[in-house]
Amino acid sequence: MRYRFHVFVCENTRPPDAPRGSCGAKGSAQVRQALKDELLRRGLHDGVRANSAGCLDACAHGPVLVVYPEGVWYGRVRPEDVPEIVASHLERGVPVERLRIKGM
Amino acid sequence: MRYRFHVFVCENTRPPDAPRGSCGAKGSAQVRQALKDELLRRGLHDGVRANSAGCLDACAHGPVLVVYPEGVWYGRVRPEDVPEIVASHLERGVPVERLRIKGM
Repeated sequence: MRYRFHVFVCENTRPPDAPRGSCGAKGSAQVRQALKDELLRRGLHDGVRANSAGCLDACAHGPVLVVYPEGVWYGRVRPEDVPEIVASHLERGVPVERLRIKGM
Repeated sequence: MRYRFHVFVCENTRPPDAPRGSCGAKGSAQVRQALKDELLRRGLHDGVRANSAGCLDACAHGPVLVVYPEGVWYGRVRPEDVPEIVASHLERGVPVERLRIKGM
């Protein structure tokens, strides 16, 4: 496996008044930047990639990200949630249950 | 697992003369469209998602895509390679060895 964890952050952006909403309009670019910063700060950036992605089709839960290879989905992620995701899931392998999208 | 296979096609685009090259400049949008068309044609579109992604950091091998949860990387993918990837890997679970990026 090339990366221990490959994280995809939805950066699809629709206009602010679009009925479906979008992760981009809810601040997903800031979430990805926080993720990149935290990975670098903890020296995890070689084994974990914080990738941008187009629409992950979970718009109601945005900002959304998915962690592979496990396929763990997180929703309504704010930049201030990122240190916990990195420290727990991406460093110790323990998903952050409170942020997981139910049923995914 | 939400998707049986979650495919990420790099659609990062740099100018045609950029030294690193880019998947977008090598036709990755057409690859993703061919993938979406073929999944629909074979009725696999509910279980397999053909996602766009930002730079997957394998620029020299573009157009590149990665299939999760296995983490199988394909390079130099042309639209005409897509039916084989779908029929073999995404329908029967057998990766297409000739298209895999060596060492990834």
